[in-house]
Amino acid sequence: MYHDLHFAFNLPVHRGSHTVDDADLREKGVTRIYDILFDYEDVLMETDRRLREILIRPEFQKEMGTREFYYHLGKILNECEKKNNLGQVSVLAVAYRNGIPVFTSSPGDSTIGMNVAGLELLAQATGLQDLFKLKINPSIDVNDSTAIILNAKRYENGKTAVILIGGGSPKNFMLQTEPQIQEVLMIPEVGQDYDINITDARPDTGGLSGAPPSEAASWGKIDPTKLEETVTAYLDVTVAFPLLTAYTIQTTKSKKLKRLYDRGQELHEKLVESYLENNKEVEKLKGLIKKL
Amino acid sequence: MYHDLHFAFNLPVHRGSHTVDDADLREKGVTRIYDILFDYEDVLMETDRRLREILIRPEFQKEMGTREFYYHLGKILNECEKKNNLGQVSVLAVAYRNGIPVFTSSPGDSTIGMNVAGLELLAQATGLQDLFKLKINPSIDVNDSTAIILNAKRYENGKTAVILIGGGSPKNFMLQTEPQIQEVLMIPEVGQDYDINITDARPDTGGLSGAPPSEAASWGKIDPTKLEETVTAYLDVTVAFPLLTAYTIQTTKSKKLKRLYDRGQELHEKLVESYLENNKEVEKLKGLIKKL
Amino acid sequence: MYHDLHFAFNLPVHRGSHTVDDADLREKGVTRIYDILFDYEDVLMETDRRLREILIRPEFQKEMGTREFYYHLGKILNECEKKNNLGQVSVLAVAYRNGIPVFTSSPGDSTIGMNVAGLELLAQATGLQDLFKLKINPSIDVNDSTAIILNAKRYENGKTAVILIGGGSPKNFMLQTEPQIQEVLMIPEVGQDYDINITDARPDTGGLSGAPPSEAASWGKIDPTKLEETVTAYLDVTVAFPLLTAYTIQTTKSKKLKRLYDRGQELHEKLVESYLENNKEVEKLKGLIKKL
Amino acid sequence: MYHDLHFAFNLPVHRGSHTVDDADLREKGVTRIYDILFDYEDVLMETDRRLREILIRPEFQKEMGTREFYYHLGKILNECEKKNNLGQVSVLAVAYRNGIPVFTSSPGDSTIGMNVAGLELLAQATGLQDLFKLKINPSIDVNDSTAIILNAKRYENGKTAVILIGGGSPKNFMLQTEPQIQEVLMIPEVGQDYDINITDARPDTGGLSGAPPSEAASWGKIDPTKLEETVTAYLDVTVAFPLLTAYTIQTTKSKKLKRLYDRGQELHEKLVESYLENNKEVEKLKGLIKKL
Repeated sequence: MYHDLHFAFNLPVHRGSHTVDDADLREKGVTRIYDILFDYEDVLMETDRRLREILIRPEFQKEMGTREFYYHLGKILNECEKKNNLGQVSVLAVAYRNGIPVFTSSPGDSTIGMNVAGLELLAQATGLQDLFKLKINPSIDVNDSTAIILNAKRYENGKTAVILIGGGSPKNFMLQTEPQIQEVLMIPEVGQDYDINITDARPDTGGLSGAPPSEAASWGKIDPTKLEETVTAYLDVTVAFPLLTAYTIQTTKSKKLKRLYDRGQELHEKLVESYLENNKEVEKLKGLIKKL
Repeated sequence: MYHDLHFAFNLPVHRGSHTVDDADLREKGVTRIYDILFDYEDVLMETDRRLREILIRPEFQKEMGTREFYYHLGKILNECEKKNNLGQVSVLAVAYRNGIPVFTSSPGDSTIGMNVAGLELLAQATGLQDLFKLKINPSIDVNDSTAIILNAKRYENGKTAVILIGGGSPKNFMLQTEPQIQEVLMIPEVGQDYDINITDARPDTGGLSGAPPSEAASWGKIDPTKLEETVTAYLDVTVAFPLLTAYTIQTTKSKKLKRLYDRGQELHEKLVESYLENNKEVEKLKGLIKKL
Repeated sequence: MYHDLHFAFNLPVHRGSHTVDDADLREKGVTRIYDILFDYEDVLMETDRRLREILIRPEFQKEMGTREFYYHLGKILNECEKKNNLGQVSVLAVAYRNGIPVFTSSPGDSTIGMNVAGLELLAQATGLQDLFKLKINPSIDVNDSTAIILNAKRYENGKTAVILIGGGSPKNFMLQTEPQIQEVLMIPEVGQDYDINITDARPDTGGLSGAPPSEAASWGKIDPTKLEETVTAYLDVTVAFPLLTAYTIQTTKSKKLKRLYDRGQELHEKLVESYLENNKEVEKLKGLIKKL
Repeated sequence: MYHDLHFAFNLPVHRGSHTVDDADLREKGVTRIYDILFDYEDVLMETDRRLREILIRPEFQKEMGTREFYYHLGKILNECEKKNNLGQVSVLAVAYRNGIPVFTSSPGDSTIGMNVAGLELLAQATGLQDLFKLKINPSIDVNDSTAIILNAKRYENGKTAVILIGGGSPKNFMLQTEPQIQEVLMIPEVGQDYDINITDARPDTGGLSGAPPSEAASWGKIDPTKLEETVTAYLDVTVAFPLLTAYTIQTTKSKKLKRLYDRGQELHEKLVESYLENNKEVEKLKGLIKKL
């Protein structure tokens, strides 16, 4: 998401080669992501400077999840795109325009998280913590992402699917929505209906990144009766995802946008409703909390 | 870290096989992590129940980073270990006893994060949010992890090393400490001195997980003059890490523990000091914040 | 090449799943290649029976390389295709029709090699070795494959390319043509002009399968001044090759077939000519051989 | 096997780095195998010169399999080792001394095969083909390797194991011994008893290199009732094999050598005996051959 900013800010990133001398690059002030090269001062540091000014805007001065954070950021990037006549270059801008919620499971990891932390450090060190009030609360994201799945399955009698590109923390974050429903909030549910994985991680190392849909089914993440509807493609995503997208565009009609971001409050209320009506532990936990 | 709890709680986890019928496992209430099997009700749900009671204890009722969160949890698991005469079975307990800080870059992703989120939902839904006050703030972790590196390099004139097991978000979280110093806090620094990677991710997919130490050097994460001190072993960590550990134990003398957890406040103050004395932008940012 | 026979013989092979119980398959007489399933008795054993009858035909009763062997086999499979109105189902038949030479670097490894060996055993054990005279001589293939490259580069002033799908013995067999020219036959040459690799083998294990084009350049296999014309795609070939083929068909005009098989004798003579005019060791080696 | 010669000839090979400029290496006459470097003229060409003189010795002037070829070569390398007081540096020399048969499934692929082919070209071009008579016949190897398995299982009532390091053609060559017994020679047998794989090839690409022991069981290569005795370790062999070897040496007593090379004729005769007594097709095939 951080690197999305370069495009919306119209700062140049270049396609080069991964076989370069990185010590030389560093000396010359060039930063590398595989075969993408950009200037340290004019792109990286400049993006940071602009980002910090954005983070000090009023709409960011509160506790929020990344879902809301990226909405505010996407709105600004959408304005940048328009102002600079860039066309569609920013992922967050397109998500903003279409009401698509965006989540990050590791909000502190990335240059965005680093600048949020830097500003918090500054505000605290200079006695301005009552003015700079941005805090990312991951619990909000856990519940907001869960509310999307619960609503689709329980309130709209629909089906849900996960498309997992790569592994790591984002993979589990998407898959844990069902255990959050079943195991933590104790709302009866049976797992998602479809699961498409594009990854180069294999099961044999035992980690989550390579864990197949069937392992997820043993947790209730995926409906165990629908394992035949799951697919794992061991492919470079830069090949697999364009193929998948082109195929989808060519073979299916456009659908009405769900604009799930806009329905955040409604979905949250349904989650609370389902939780309170089902959870046998609610009273016990309330009792414990009240003793605090 | 969540699965560490099973061991400290003395709940049974079994070594089995990864070639099982997961739909059958789900029906029988067995949960699988590759070739590890455990009971859904008696282990997973029971761990969750105990965890929630722990999270309602007074020491957790505040905003904190995962560094502090795991310290409190490790202290409790240490008591569990002792009470049950289990020997050393918990990673968090051993970290607690030795004053070793533990961080997670994705605090909402995991059953611990799910239960924190569940309790927050409960407290808010039942008007108890003034009693249950646990919030994980990732910015605290970003700055606390950075403070460790800064102290070693700038205040103790020492060398630093990263040992990266696997990739994903934790890899960048460890490596971003140097950019947090140089790029965000603008404190002059040159990168870490040693970098050992154990991974099965290759560079060619272009992602962070497989990015080699040299790419990190182009960011200032690793000192570009010390790339010869970096190693990437493309090996299953269950083989590589025991070999590395056994070799280290056999060839080096015990060192005095640094107990960096205990020095958290001191390291934080040094970070603030270095930041304020160097950052040209501090005044400008203060000005912007004051206008809020 | 063996499995090409099933198609030309119109014996059924089925697409199934790789997640099956192989002990059960064996009991039921089903043989598996990943997700391809076929009957042991009616397909595998039947293919072998027909193959053995083919191998006893007169045109196979001589010493030959696999280039000639596959030509004779392709001619028969071409007849099978036509007789059964199968359309184009056999790779060897299409190679036969177009005069494309086909080589195998490991002629004894495969069910074809096994049946050749079985017939040789039978003939020798029953005193019929003067009638069944088929012998595969790998040296003929080494020189015939080399002659193709030498002719293109030295006699036709052209450029050559290798398209390497996968690794192992076939990869080196194609690449060793240049060292055979330069290092063994001592004919001045500089390496092939283009090198496209589609593989999942990475360089780090140190083997030939994952060795990049640059390593090949250090041997003179690839022209070291043309490394920018080389590509390695770390991709499943079932995805990469159709994409490459479709792109080629859509963007280039049909070319006249080279029918290199038909020119085998001519290319062989040019190889001998170039060898004898250049090799300083020829006289010395002749002297050594004459002393035998 | 070719690179084994450098060691027996006491020609220097150096450990370097895989991150070098290969065009520069080529210009300077240095050849690279991953991180191994050696001189093109003084090591590669010199090894070839000595090899060609060896191949002209009288013991090589016949048709043979690689089993016999490597025996003769190992005998000479054993003498080189002794003469130069090198200790144990050559794999072929140690195999020679211990009567261990060595096979190659792709005899034309390698610098040994290239030099055999070069000498054949020379002899034919200069009318010396009646003096230089070395021909590698892969069928001999197919039957000789099969005879080892058949003898162990059928005549000595023993168990057999395959240890497969890497994949490709050598993997199938070892595994096809059972199909050669059952499917081609039609001798009743049930598959090998143990199967250890060390590889980085995964099953999902569908190739033989990554095919698991269970797939082999569907072919009768491995006894389908003994799949629990099979292991696949997805590990770099440079780590896995030393661990396996050290463990074996430390935990098992030395066993008497089988010296299977020395028993070649006996094993061959047993294979013929078993073949003729079982094969229902022998008479039919004899009839077909006699019509030639």
